[in-house]
Amino acid sequence: MISLIPVAGMPEIHPGDVIAEVIARHAELADGDVVVVTQKIVSKAEGRLVPIDPDDPGAATQAILDESVRVLRRRDQLFITETRHGFVCANSGVDLSNVERGWAALLPLDADRSARRIRDGLRGRTGNDVAVIVSDTFGRPWRHGLTDVAIGCAGIAAIVDLRGGVDTNGRELHATEICIADEIAGAAELVMGKASSIPVAIVRGVDPKWLRESSVRAEIVRNHTDDLFR
Amino acid sequence: MISLIPVAGMPEIHPGDVIAEVIARHAELADGDVVVVTQKIVSKAEGRLVPIDPDDPGAATQAILDESVRVLRRRDQLFITETRHGFVCANSGVDLSNVERGWAALLPLDADRSARRIRDGLRGRTGNDVAVIVSDTFGRPWRHGLTDVAIGCAGIAAIVDLRGGVDTNGRELHATEICIADEIAGAAELVMGKASSIPVAIVRGVDPKWLRESSVRAEIVRNHTDDLFR
Repeated sequence: MISLIPVAGMPEIHPGDVIAEVIARHAELADGDVVVVTQKIVSKAEGRLVPIDPDDPGAATQAILDESVRVLRRRDQLFITETRHGFVCANSGVDLSNVERGWAALLPLDADRSARRIRDGLRGRTGNDVAVIVSDTFGRPWRHGLTDVAIGCAGIAAIVDLRGGVDTNGRELHATEICIADEIAGAAELVMGKASSIPVAIVRGVDPKWLRESSVRAEIVRNHTDDLFR
Repeated sequence: MISLIPVAGMPEIHPGDVIAEVIARHAELADGDVVVVTQKIVSKAEGRLVPIDPDDPGAATQAILDESVRVLRRRDQLFITETRHGFVCANSGVDLSNVERGWAALLPLDADRSARRIRDGLRGRTGNDVAVIVSDTFGRPWRHGLTDVAIGCAGIAAIVDLRGGVDTNGRELHATEICIADEIAGAAELVMGKASSIPVAIVRGVDPKWLRESSVRAEIVRNHTDDLFR
């Protein structure tokens, strides 16, 4: 059994705050837990905020383009871009909600590193060996609705490769690399809720075999030559 | 808190089996549970199996094309197709694993209807009012790894629309339609495991506000005019 446990009561995060410290004060962790942290508070803590003139529609556009290496599609004020990290998402992940008016939050420069830092901080403060996933809310083609996915991880496999295993009929399994980091990020979202101010959740009970060093950038982000849709 | 509970000990499913009956025998359900059932056993129970000559590589290709309305991309034996349901996925969802050699499993004709039937069957047999999601394992562009998503649902919102709400700064939230059906399907996959023969999981503790009539086809499948990538 896996439990999805929201971490309630966390205060507003500001630039310079140490997220591991705040989580350690509000959560009872156990070894093997996966701590999922939303990008929004990571970006705030890391000072990834830029001023945006709320009365100038072009200001947000400029921030979106500054954060992108390529625009894949555009419809009105919605840009589907590729970010410097290699993520393909709406508006380069530039986010005007849940930050103060006049400001926008940018994605962390390196969310894998952010995850490692939170993981190390939690180990130092609580003694617990936990994994950390930094999550963000992305859309996708062909399907309505957004889901939370992993943009950074530490201490847990991003992808579990079941290739080479056999199915229940003894037939070799092909191409069953499961992106558990994204599934865990989405699962955690179910107890966070966009508007409910719960930026952290604990996913308890994952398969201990999944706990290893990894990174979203190395395992999840497709390179261009490997991508049929870029 | 939400719990992800695998349903262990289920027997192999064969054409004509009543899935609700098998689940009712192996799971202790409670009102408000979401029962996630993998497509594979739904297809088997519904007899969605076709013979495939295992020595003829073209046989699988023909089944894939028969199930598609359009091929979006092709690389060697991998076809990214649009199915009659409007899903975009690899090989039209035609699956050679976990079925007997010489056979392939096709997607259910209408997985929303399959979900409703299982839901009604569980209510009749257990008295419990549960929601049902039929899940399948899909890839996606730009990101490595597969995740489980919903291809049918009953008794639970496919998408929860948080638009019109306000964030913690009182700012109106835009475009935060969360596809909870996909997040729940992915969460359930975490306790199933591709090779471990657990085709059903219970997701317990979801927000009761999410429990309403819905369907994947009406809420998740994008139509062409609305899709920037088709």
